[in-house]
Amino acid sequence: MKKSNPLETRVKSKIREIPDFPKPGINFYDITTLLADGEIFTEIINHFAKRFEDQKIDKIIGIESRGFIFAAAIASKMSIGFIPVRKPGKLPYKVEKVDYDLEYGSDSLEIHQDALEKGSRVVIVDDVLATGGTAKATCELVSKLGANIVEVTFLSELSFLKGRQKIQDYSVYTLISYS
Amino acid sequence: MKKSNPLETRVKSKIREIPDFPKPGINFYDITTLLADGEIFTEIINHFAKRFEDQKIDKIIGIESRGFIFAAAIASKMSIGFIPVRKPGKLPYKVEKVDYDLEYGSDSLEIHQDALEKGSRVVIVDDVLATGGTAKATCELVSKLGANIVEVTFLSELSFLKGRQKIQDYSVYTLISYS
Repeated sequence: MKKSNPLETRVKSKIREIPDFPKPGINFYDITTLLADGEIFTEIINHFAKRFEDQKIDKIIGIESRGFIFAAAIASKMSIGFIPVRKPGKLPYKVEKVDYDLEYGSDSLEIHQDALEKGSRVVIVDDVLATGGTAKATCELVSKLGANIVEVTFLSELSFLKGRQKIQDYSVYTLISYS
Repeated sequence: MKKSNPLETRVKSKIREIPDFPKPGINFYDITTLLADGEIFTEIINHFAKRFEDQKIDKIIGIESRGFIFAAAIASKMSIGFIPVRKPGKLPYKVEKVDYDLEYGSDSLEIHQDALEKGSRVVIVDDVLATGGTAKATCELVSKLGANIVEVTFLSELSFLKGRQKIQDYSVYTLISYS
Protein backbone atom coordinates (compact mmCIF):
# COMPACT_ATOMS: atom_id res chain seq x y z
CA MET A 1 0.00 0.00 0.00
CA LYS A 2 1.16 3.52 -0.80
CA LYS A 3 2.23 5.59 2.17
CA SER A 4 0.39 8.83 2.72
CA ASN A 5 2.49 11.89 2.01
CA PRO A 6 1.64 15.48 2.88
CA LEU A 7 0.20 16.35 -0.55
CA GLU A 8 -2.10 13.32 -0.53
CA THR A 9 -3.31 14.16 2.95
CA ARG A 10 -3.97 17.77 2.08
CA VAL A 11 -5.74 16.84 -1.15
CA LYS A 12 -8.05 14.47 0.70
CA SER A 13 -8.81 17.09 3.33
CA LYS A 14 -10.04 19.45 0.58
CA ILE A 15 -12.36 16.94 -1.08
CA ARG A 16 -15.96 17.05 0.11
CA GLU A 17 -17.97 13.88 0.57
CA ILE A 18 -21.59 14.07 -0.56
CA PRO A 19 -23.75 11.15 0.54
CA ASP A 20 -26.37 9.70 -1.81
CA PHE A 21 -25.17 11.39 -5.01
CA PRO A 22 -25.94 10.79 -7.83
CA LYS A 23 -28.20 8.17 -6.22
CA PRO A 24 -28.94 6.66 -2.81
CA GLY A 25 -26.10 4.62 -1.36
CA ILE A 26 -23.36 6.29 -3.39
CA ASN A 27 -20.83 8.44 -1.56
CA PHE A 28 -19.66 11.09 -4.04
CA TYR A 29 -16.22 12.67 -3.70
CA ASP A 30 -16.73 16.30 -4.71
CA ILE A 31 -13.50 17.84 -6.03
CA THR A 32 -14.95 21.32 -6.59
CA THR A 33 -13.86 22.31 -3.09
CA LEU A 34 -10.35 21.18 -3.97
CA LEU A 35 -10.26 23.03 -7.30
CA ALA A 36 -11.45 26.19 -5.57
CA ASP A 37 -8.20 26.27 -3.58
CA GLY A 38 -5.72 27.80 -6.00
CA GLU A 39 -2.65 26.90 -4.00
CA ILE A 40 -3.29 23.20 -3.77
CA PHE A 41 -4.73 22.98 -7.29
CA THR A 42 -1.48 24.42 -8.62
CA GLU A 43 0.54 22.10 -6.42
CA ILE A 44 -1.31 19.10 -7.88
CA ILE A 45 -0.69 20.29 -11.45
CA ASN A 46 3.01 20.81 -10.67
CA HIS A 47 3.16 17.34 -9.13
CA PHE A 48 1.82 15.75 -12.31
CA ALA A 49 3.98 17.93 -14.57
CA LYS A 50 7.06 16.83 -12.63
CA ARG A 51 6.11 13.15 -13.08
CA PHE A 52 6.09 13.57 -16.84
CA GLU A 53 8.90 16.06 -17.41
CA ASP A 54 11.56 13.50 -18.40
CA GLN A 55 9.18 11.21 -20.27
CA LYS A 56 9.31 12.91 -23.69
CA ILE A 57 5.53 13.26 -23.75
CA ASP A 58 4.06 14.53 -27.03
CA LYS A 59 0.43 15.11 -25.99
CA ILE A 60 -1.72 15.20 -22.87
CA ILE A 61 -5.16 13.65 -23.35
CA GLY A 62 -8.09 14.79 -21.23
CA ILE A 63 -11.38 12.91 -20.87
CA GLU A 64 -14.56 15.06 -20.91
CA SER A 65 -15.45 16.91 -18.72
CA ARG A 66 -13.55 16.87 -15.41
CA GLY A 67 -10.51 15.32 -17.04
CA PHE A 68 -10.22 18.51 -19.10
CA ILE A 69 -9.55 20.50 -15.93
CA PHE A 70 -6.43 18.58 -14.97
CA ALA A 71 -5.21 17.67 -18.46
CA ALA A 72 -5.40 21.22 -19.82
CA ALA A 73 -3.62 22.69 -16.81
CA ILE A 74 -0.85 20.07 -17.03
CA ALA A 75 -0.50 20.55 -20.79
CA SER A 76 -0.25 24.32 -20.46
CA LYS A 77 2.24 24.03 -17.59
CA MET A 78 4.44 21.74 -19.72
CA SER A 79 3.89 23.54 -23.06
CA ILE A 80 2.58 20.27 -24.47
CA GLY A 81 -0.48 19.99 -26.70
CA PHE A 82 -3.85 19.06 -25.19
CA ILE A 83 -6.11 16.52 -26.92
CA PRO A 84 -9.76 16.11 -25.87
CA VAL A 85 -11.63 12.80 -25.75
CA ARG A 86 -15.29 13.71 -25.90
CA LYS A 87 -18.81 12.40 -25.72
CA PRO A 88 -20.44 11.57 -29.07
CA GLY A 89 -21.31 14.36 -31.48
CA LYS A 90 -19.11 17.02 -29.90
CA LEU A 91 -15.99 16.75 -32.04
CA PRO A 92 -16.55 18.37 -35.44
CA TYR A 93 -13.99 16.57 -37.61
CA LYS A 94 -13.64 12.87 -38.53
CA VAL A 95 -13.55 10.73 -35.40
CA GLU A 96 -12.69 7.31 -34.05
CA LYS A 97 -15.40 6.05 -31.72
CA VAL A 98 -15.48 3.39 -29.00
CA ASP A 99 -18.61 2.14 -27.24
CA TYR A 100 -18.42 0.92 -23.67
CA ASP A 101 -20.83 -0.55 -21.15
CA LEU A 102 -22.29 1.33 -18.23
CA GLU A 103 -24.04 -0.20 -15.25
CA TYR A 104 -27.27 0.30 -17.19
CA GLY A 105 -26.91 0.69 -20.95
CA SER A 106 -23.87 1.96 -22.82
CA ASP A 107 -22.06 5.12 -23.84
CA SER A 108 -19.42 6.17 -26.35
CA LEU A 109 -16.32 8.30 -26.53
CA GLU A 110 -14.69 9.91 -29.54
CA ILE A 111 -11.31 11.29 -30.58
CA HIS A 112 -10.38 13.13 -33.77
CA GLN A 113 -8.79 10.73 -36.24
CA ASP A 114 -5.89 13.11 -36.85
CA ALA A 115 -5.36 14.05 -33.19
CA LEU A 116 -2.32 11.86 -32.58
CA GLU A 117 0.62 10.76 -34.67
CA LYS A 118 1.51 7.09 -34.90
CA GLY A 119 4.20 6.27 -32.37
CA SER A 120 3.71 9.47 -30.37
CA ARG A 121 3.99 9.27 -26.58
CA VAL A 122 0.90 10.33 -24.66
CA VAL A 123 -0.49 10.53 -21.16
CA ILE A 124 -4.22 10.08 -20.49
CA VAL A 125 -5.65 12.17 -17.64
CA ASP A 126 -8.96 11.99 -15.80
CA ASP A 127 -10.15 13.03 -12.37
CA VAL A 128 -11.21 9.67 -10.98
CA LEU A 129 -10.68 5.99 -11.75
CA ALA A 130 -13.98 4.31 -10.83
CA THR A 131 -15.10 1.21 -12.77
CA GLY A 132 -12.54 1.97 -15.47
CA GLY A 133 -15.02 2.01 -18.36
CA THR A 134 -14.17 5.44 -19.72
CA ALA A 135 -10.46 4.94 -19.12
CA LYS A 136 -10.45 1.65 -21.01
CA ALA A 137 -12.44 3.17 -23.89
CA THR A 138 -9.97 6.06 -24.05
CA CYS A 139 -7.01 3.66 -24.13
CA GLU A 140 -8.69 1.87 -27.03
CA LEU A 141 -9.21 5.15 -28.90
CA VAL A 142 -5.59 6.16 -28.44
CA SER A 143 -4.36 2.73 -29.49
CA LYS A 144 -6.51 2.87 -32.62
CA LEU A 145 -4.56 5.97 -33.63
CA GLY A 146 -1.29 4.13 -33.06
CA ALA A 147 -0.01 6.28 -30.19
CA ASN A 148 1.85 4.89 -27.17
CA ILE A 149 0.25 5.29 -23.76
CA VAL A 150 3.02 6.16 -21.33
CA GLU A 151 0.67 6.43 -18.36
CA VAL A 152 -3.00 6.67 -17.43
CA THR A 153 -3.14 9.22 -14.64
CA PHE A 154 -5.90 10.11 -12.21
CA LEU A 155 -6.29 12.43 -9.28
CA SER A 156 -8.07 9.71 -7.32
CA GLU A 157 -9.09 6.09 -7.40
CA LEU A 158 -12.07 4.29 -5.92
CA SER A 159 -10.08 1.11 -5.47
CA PHE A 160 -13.07 -0.97 -4.32
CA LEU A 161 -14.52 -0.67 -7.85
CA LYS A 162 -11.46 -2.45 -9.26
CA GLY A 163 -11.13 -0.17 -12.30
CA ARG A 164 -7.41 -0.96 -12.52
CA GLN A 165 -8.22 -4.44 -13.74
CA LYS A 166 -9.83 -3.00 -16.86
CA ILE A 167 -6.65 -1.10 -17.80
CA GLN A 168 -4.06 -3.53 -16.46
CA ASP A 169 -2.12 -3.49 -19.74
CA TYR A 170 -1.08 0.09 -19.00
CA SER A 171 0.90 1.95 -16.40
CA VAL A 172 -1.61 3.55 -14.00
CA TYR A 173 -0.99 6.28 -11.45
CA THR A 174 -3.37 7.88 -8.97
CA LEU A 175 -2.42 10.57 -6.48
CA ILE A 176 -4.95 9.46 -3.86
CA SER A 177 -7.06 6.39 -3.30
CA TYR A 178 -10.29 5.59 -1.47
CA SER A 179 -10.75 1.98 -0.37
CA MET B 1 -11.77 47.97 -34.45
CA LYS B 2 -8.99 46.02 -32.78
CA LYS B 3 -5.71 45.79 -34.68
CA SER B 4 -4.41 42.30 -35.44
CA ASN B 5 -1.31 41.39 -33.46
CA PRO B 6 0.97 38.43 -34.03
CA LEU B 7 -0.65 36.22 -31.36
CA GLU B 8 -4.12 36.79 -32.81
CA THR B 9 -2.88 35.96 -36.29
CA ARG B 10 -1.12 32.81 -35.15
CA VAL B 11 -4.14 31.69 -33.12
CA LYS B 12 -6.43 32.08 -36.12
CA SER B 13 -4.02 30.17 -38.33
CA LYS B 14 -4.24 27.19 -35.94
CA ILE B 15 -8.05 27.07 -35.82
CA ARG B 16 -9.66 24.72 -38.32
CA GLU B 17 -12.89 25.64 -40.07
CA ILE B 18 -15.39 22.82 -40.46
CA PRO B 19 -18.27 23.57 -42.82
CA ASP B 20 -21.80 22.38 -42.00
CA PHE B 21 -21.20 21.46 -38.34
CA PRO B 22 -23.21 20.88 -36.23
CA LYS B 23 -25.72 21.45 -39.02
CA PRO B 24 -25.85 22.61 -42.65
CA GLY B 25 -24.96 26.24 -43.17
CA ILE B 26 -22.96 26.59 -39.95
CA ASN B 27 -19.21 27.13 -40.22
CA PHE B 28 -17.67 25.64 -37.08
CA TYR B 29 -14.37 26.95 -35.74
CA ASP B 30 -12.57 23.89 -34.40
CA ILE B 31 -10.09 24.80 -31.67
CA THR B 32 -8.79 21.25 -31.13
CA THR B 33 -6.05 21.91 -33.69
CA LEU B 34 -5.06 24.97 -31.68
CA LEU B 35 -5.06 23.16 -28.32
CA ALA B 36 -2.91 20.41 -29.81
CA ASP B 37 -0.09 22.94 -30.28
CA GLY B 38 1.49 23.16 -26.84
CA GLU B 39 3.52 26.25 -27.57
CA ILE B 40 0.66 28.46 -28.68
CA PHE B 41 -1.76 27.02 -26.11
CA THR B 42 0.67 28.00 -23.37
CA GLU B 43 1.17 31.41 -24.94
CA ILE B 44 -2.60 31.99 -24.89
CA ILE B 45 -2.84 30.97 -21.23
CA ASN B 46 0.06 33.28 -20.36
CA HIS B 47 -1.62 36.10 -22.27
CA PHE B 48 -4.81 35.75 -20.22
CA ALA B 49 -2.91 35.32 -16.95
CA LYS B 50 -1.03 38.54 -17.66
CA ARG B 51 -4.32 40.39 -18.26
CA PHE B 52 -5.54 39.44 -14.80
CA GLU B 53 -2.36 39.53 -12.75
CA ASP B 54 -2.91 42.97 -11.24
CA GLN B 55 -6.68 42.64 -10.90
CA LYS B 56 -6.80 40.94 -7.48
CA ILE B 57 -8.85 38.06 -8.88
CA ASP B 58 -10.19 35.60 -6.30
CA LYS B 59 -11.56 32.89 -8.59
CA ILE B 60 -11.54 31.88 -12.24
CA ILE B 61 -14.88 30.51 -13.45
CA GLY B 62 -15.03 28.05 -16.33
CA ILE B 63 -18.15 27.16 -18.29
CA GLU B 64 -18.61 23.45 -19.18
CA SER B 65 -16.98 21.93 -21.19
CA ARG B 66 -14.54 23.82 -23.39
CA GLY B 67 -14.43 26.73 -20.98
CA PHE B 68 -12.88 24.32 -18.46
CA ILE B 69 -9.84 23.93 -20.71
CA PHE B 70 -8.91 27.61 -20.63
CA ALA B 71 -10.18 28.48 -17.17
CA ALA B 72 -8.39 25.62 -15.41
CA ALA B 73 -5.10 26.34 -17.14
CA ILE B 74 -5.33 30.05 -16.30
CA ALA B 75 -6.29 29.30 -12.69
CA SER B 76 -3.41 26.89 -12.24
CA LYS B 77 -0.96 29.29 -13.87
CA MET B 78 -2.06 32.05 -11.47
CA SER B 79 -2.48 29.83 -8.38
CA ILE B 80 -6.09 30.99 -8.21
CA GLY B 81 -9.03 28.70 -7.46
CA PHE B 82 -11.09 27.29 -10.33
CA ILE B 83 -14.90 27.22 -10.14
CA PRO B 84 -16.97 25.17 -12.61
CA VAL B 85 -20.34 26.23 -14.02
CA ARG B 86 -21.99 23.04 -15.20
CA LYS B 87 -24.94 21.58 -17.01
CA PRO B 88 -27.84 20.47 -14.78
CA GLY B 89 -27.41 17.50 -12.48
CA LYS B 90 -23.61 17.40 -12.56
CA LEU B 91 -22.77 19.37 -9.42
CA PRO B 92 -23.34 17.26 -6.31
CA TYR B 93 -23.90 19.93 -3.66
CA LYS B 94 -26.62 22.61 -3.31
CA VAL B 95 -26.80 24.72 -6.47
CA GLU B 96 -28.09 27.94 -7.92
CA LYS B 97 -29.67 27.37 -11.32
CA VAL B 98 -30.46 29.64 -14.26
CA ASP B 99 -32.51 28.69 -17.32
CA TYR B 100 -31.80 30.28 -20.67
CA ASP B 101 -33.26 30.09 -24.16
CA LEU B 102 -31.68 28.27 -27.05
CA GLU B 103 -32.60 28.62 -30.71
CA TYR B 104 -34.96 25.71 -30.16
CA GLY B 105 -35.96 25.02 -26.57
CA SER B 106 -34.01 25.93 -23.45
CA ASP B 107 -31.18 24.79 -21.24
CA SER B 108 -29.85 25.44 -17.74
CA LEU B 109 -26.59 26.04 -15.98
CA GLU B 110 -25.70 25.52 -12.33
CA ILE B 111 -23.12 26.69 -9.82
CA HIS B 112 -22.56 25.49 -6.26
CA GLN B 113 -24.24 27.84 -3.80
CA ASP B 114 -21.08 28.05 -1.69
CA ALA B 115 -18.67 28.40 -4.62
CA LEU B 116 -18.11 32.15 -4.30
CA GLU B 117 -17.91 34.59 -1.44
CA LYS B 118 -19.99 37.74 -1.52
CA GLY B 119 -17.91 40.60 -2.85
CA SER B 120 -15.21 38.36 -4.30
CA ARG B 121 -13.67 39.34 -7.63
CA VAL B 122 -14.03 36.80 -10.40
CA VAL B 123 -13.34 36.30 -14.09
CA ILE B 124 -15.62 34.17 -16.27
CA VAL B 125 -13.90 32.20 -19.04
CA ASP B 126 -15.29 30.36 -22.06
CA ASP B 127 -13.92 29.39 -25.43
CA VAL B 128 -16.32 31.27 -27.70
CA LEU B 129 -18.86 34.08 -27.42
CA ALA B 130 -21.63 33.16 -29.84
CA THR B 131 -25.21 34.23 -29.09
CA GLY B 132 -24.24 35.00 -25.50
CA GLY B 133 -26.86 32.77 -23.90
CA THR B 134 -24.54 30.70 -21.73
CA ALA B 135 -22.39 33.72 -20.88
CA LYS B 136 -25.42 35.70 -19.74
CA ALA B 137 -26.72 32.78 -17.68
CA THR B 138 -23.30 32.42 -16.06
CA CYS B 139 -23.21 36.13 -15.21
CA GLU B 140 -26.61 35.75 -13.57
CA LEU B 141 -25.42 32.75 -11.53
CA VAL B 142 -22.34 34.61 -10.34
CA SER B 143 -24.38 37.69 -9.49
CA LYS B 144 -26.84 35.57 -7.50
CA LEU B 145 -23.92 34.57 -5.27
CA GLY B 146 -22.99 38.22 -4.79
CA ALA B 147 -19.60 38.09 -6.49
CA ASN B 148 -18.21 40.85 -8.71
CA ILE B 149 -17.54 40.05 -12.36
CA VAL B 150 -14.29 41.76 -13.28
CA GLU B 151 -14.35 40.47 -16.84
CA VAL B 152 -16.01 37.93 -19.11
CA THR B 153 -13.22 36.52 -21.24
CA PHE B 154 -13.29 34.40 -24.39
CA LEU B 155 -10.76 33.01 -26.77
CA SER B 156 -12.93 34.02 -29.71
CA GLU B 157 -16.08 35.86 -30.67
CA LEU B 158 -18.53 35.33 -33.52
CA SER B 159 -19.33 39.01 -33.66
CA PHE B 160 -22.10 38.62 -36.26
CA LEU B 161 -24.20 36.81 -33.62
CA LYS B 162 -24.14 39.93 -31.42
CA GLY B 163 -23.59 38.04 -28.17
CA ARG B 164 -21.96 41.10 -26.61
CA GLN B 165 -25.35 42.79 -26.44
CA LYS B 166 -26.57 40.13 -24.01
CA ILE B 167 -23.73 40.82 -21.57
CA GLN B 168 -23.29 44.55 -22.16
CA ASP B 169 -23.41 45.29 -18.43
CA TYR B 170 -20.03 43.61 -18.07
CA SER B 171 -16.51 44.13 -19.29
CA VAL B 172 -15.95 41.69 -22.18
CA TYR B 173 -12.67 40.63 -23.76
CA THR B 174 -12.00 38.28 -26.67
CA LEU B 175 -8.59 37.47 -28.06
CA ILE B 176 -9.83 36.94 -31.62
CA SER B 177 -13.01 37.75 -33.50
CA TYR B 178 -14.78 36.42 -36.57
CA SER B 179 -17.10 38.80 -38.37
